Amino acid sequence: MVEPDKELEFQLGEVTRTIHNLGIPVMIVIEGPPASGKSRLSNALYMALDAKYTDFIATRPPREFDLRHSFMHRYWNHLPKEGDINIHFRSWYAQYIEFKENNIRDNIKVDFDEIEEDMDNFEKTLIQNGYEILKFYIDTAKDVREHHIEKIKKNPILKWKAEEFQERLEHFNYEGEMERFIAHDAYCPWTEIDFDDKKHAVKKLFKTIIKKLNKRIKKEQKNIREKVSGGFTTGFETELFNFDFDKETVEKKVYKERLPELQKRMREIQFQLYKEKRPLILVYEGMDAAGKGGNIKRTRALLDPTGYTYNAVGSPTDIELRHHYLWRFASKIPRSGHVGFFDRSWYGRVLVERIEGFATKKEWSQAYEEINDFEKSLYNSGAIIIKFFLSLDKGEQLRRFLDRQGRPEKQWKLTDEDWRNRKKWDLYLEAGEDMVNLTNTSYAPWKVISGNDKRYARITALETIIEICESRLDGI
Amino acid sequence: MVEPDKELEFQLGEVTRTIHNLGIPVMIVIEGPPASGKSRLSNALYMALDAKYTDFIATRPPREFDLRHSFMHRYWNHLPKEGDINIHFRSWYAQYIEFKENNIRDNIKVDFDEIEEDMDNFEKTLIQNGYEILKFYIDTAKDVREHHIEKIKKNPILKWKAEEFQERLEHFNYEGEMERFIAHDAYCPWTEIDFDDKKHAVKKLFKTIIKKLNKRIKKEQKNIREKVSGGFTTGFETELFNFDFDKETVEKKVYKERLPELQKRMREIQFQLYKEKRPLILVYEGMDAAGKGGNIKRTRALLDPTGYTYNAVGSPTDIELRHHYLWRFASKIPRSGHVGFFDRSWYGRVLVERIEGFATKKEWSQAYEEINDFEKSLYNSGAIIIKFFLSLDKGEQLRRFLDRQGRPEKQWKLTDEDWRNRKKWDLYLEAGEDMVNLTNTSYAPWKVISGNDKRYARITALETIIEICESRLDGI
Repeated sequence: MVEPDKELEFQLGEVTRTIHNLGIPVMIVIEGPPASGKSRLSNALYMALDAKYTDFIATRPPREFDLRHSFMHRYWNHLPKEGDINIHFRSWYAQYIEFKENNIRDNIKVDFDEIEEDMDNFEKTLIQNGYEILKFYIDTAKDVREHHIEKIKKNPILKWKAEEFQERLEHFNYEGEMERFIAHDAYCPWTEIDFDDKKHAVKKLFKTIIKKLNKRIKKEQKNIREKVSGGFTTGFETELFNFDFDKETVEKKVYKERLPELQKRMREIQFQLYKEKRPLILVYEGMDAAGKGGNIKRTRALLDPTGYTYNAVGSPTDIELRHHYLWRFASKIPRSGHVGFFDRSWYGRVLVERIEGFATKKEWSQAYEEINDFEKSLYNSGAIIIKFFLSLDKGEQLRRFLDRQGRPEKQWKLTDEDWRNRKKWDLYLEAGEDMVNLTNTSYAPWKVISGNDKRYARITALETIIEICESRLDGI
Repeated sequence: MVEPDKELEFQLGEVTRTIHNLGIPVMIVIEGPPASGKSRLSNALYMALDAKYTDFIATRPPREFDLRHSFMHRYWNHLPKEGDINIHFRSWYAQYIEFKENNIRDNIKVDFDEIEEDMDNFEKTLIQNGYEILKFYIDTAKDVREHHIEKIKKNPILKWKAEEFQERLEHFNYEGEMERFIAHDAYCPWTEIDFDDKKHAVKKLFKTIIKKLNKRIKKEQKNIREKVSGGFTTGFETELFNFDFDKETVEKKVYKERLPELQKRMREIQFQLYKEKRPLILVYEGMDAAGKGGNIKRTRALLDPTGYTYNAVGSPTDIELRHHYLWRFASKIPRSGHVGFFDRSWYGRVLVERIEGFATKKEWSQAYEEINDFEKSLYNSGAIIIKFFLSLDKGEQLRRFLDRQGRPEKQWKLTDEDWRNRKKWDLYLEAGEDMVNLTNTSYAPWKVISGNDKRYARITALETIIEICESRLDGI
């Protein structure tokens, strides 16, 4: 066991406790070539931190399961919550190099330049949302590493570990790639540590962490809470949601004929997605009573229930609130070959959170780009993403509310919150229009649908999904 | 899409909403041979329930990842929370048959009779803790199933599905095994449904669910909240924790010599566990300030941090409180080859929950057996489980509290709760003694250690772990 300077360990304890109490999430990344001492160094760090809120996360070689998700999936899932510390022993960098060297790809053709950008964006969105990321590269001389391997080899129980090291040393261009990353340094810089001398290495690691976290603490204490503002315009007039509602209708007879055809085709699409290992992500936003649930129900009616998930998105739980706002969705993104329905989604950040003032202006303003980046990273791993905004006019909403009130089998659908939201109708229009304008991308397009006529909305959504999937799938 | 009777669908909606509001967790199991119609039937059910609190969980063939956990692991992880409904499409029964027929085993020799008992115990502990389990077997005539397969075969996109069905039909003795399970019927009975006639099948499924849930609702409304009682004795005298504290010591000189030896051996044990794919579960309970954290720290000092997890168990979160009390631990059980430290554990059910009245007498009384069953199921899948109770005398605790108060680097360790707990010292002794007596099993033994002398406690814990592991591992 590496015994660091007691005084330094005490200081590290103090600063991490303060960080914990301030609710700042911290990620400490430790990279280094095989047998560089990063295991011993990480353990020294892990032992010095309070294990109650420290997590040690090792990047293992990917399993079949991991390859059914996007490249950054496992890191999104493992984000520390406010006040917690993750030690990432080998990280997305090691994973990137392993994927590239072994030519491992997710479900479809992966462009490694795009993945590099996803990695940058991942760090950026975390830092923008208050995460502290400290990156260390253990840069130990080759002869020291070889000496260490020879030493391990002598113990018959540990011998296989040494062999694993040697194999890695021979097969990977780890160091070359890491050099490039360290030079690149996009959003947060690396600290290099030489492990030739253990004591010195531990000291440098601890001192750097103490210094950087102290800097953050000072910044935090100066921070004046930013003004919450939804940035709304008085007398906002929507362009996007100005439908000629009378024209956007489908007759009952046509509907009865067309719907089963589309549902059958949708079932075929599902099987083809499975065959080609592509995930399909369907996002539904819209006003209360716009018919999202019923629309989704028609789309999933004939699907094989083992191949899709339905996610109803409500208020976040306490634990979810203490994570990055995308964290709770990451684990719900469908794996390859599966369909994921989102009845409301991560767009809550720029809708309800903006409208109700749960997010600051800075937070919701930067979220458009963050969400685009997030969707891009899913797209880069093969996902097909389609987003629907179901819009209806204010009179039609009132009619539906009153109908729900009057019918016993529908009463439960109407809550006080629906009436409260209705009062903010114009804010919802403006936030919705901004959202669609700022996040309508080629890789994750929005389709705004008039929801006044439910038949029209259902047929249009199904047709849109089928059309986009047909153009993106090879064998259909 | 199967269109069930509207009135019946309304009734199903009503009863499940009531169940949801009462906070009763429901698991609906649907089993049936390939092409029996269970997919269509499950989807009809899934479509009729409120997707906002219904989860559809399909048992897929096990992946390498699943095999690194105990047999029931994935079902423990997927338990519904209060008020939620799980549809288990193929369940632990299908998994059991698949494992048995393909001779799939977890990390070590699996005894299928033991696994059957684990399955019974799983259902029992859920039902005892308020879960509602409804089991359906779709028993469709063979010619009807074959006809269905022929029909699917005609669609080129779905053809591979038909082939999968046929392969399963030929290779599995699914029906024979299920017959045995249905006859056995230990804790909750099966309902058989014939899918020859779709409409009739859906009707029977819905009616059965409505009837059974209504029965539960009536029972719930009659329920008078049971009296909370810790069942404590006045003037309790402990036998178990009566140490001759002065004798249970280790001299500093001996300690300095012995500790590094044991730590080195512990590291070898870890590597051997990894090689033999055995998980090691280490539970630490004991009075406040008994030295659990420091003890664990000495044991993990030289371990490879990529191969162990440290779990500090605090108060449950809101979401955890709404699940079976073992749920939050299930996901933290180490996978094969790994070590899991538990700084406090599931034994909180019979310690703090009993003492503070968070669990009713019925709840904590039945928990001893439930916990034994749970640990047995882990043991059956290859786990080595060792449990430590660190005990110290009341005077020594006071001395340590005062020491913490007096030293700036230790103050944060002492909380008001520690002082409150101290007042319940005798209750803690009695609950602790009951716990050790009732859950000290051959497959998960307790070791009660005098914690007055920290050196003694650390050396003894390490020696115990090493001794038990040496006797259970083949190659060491």
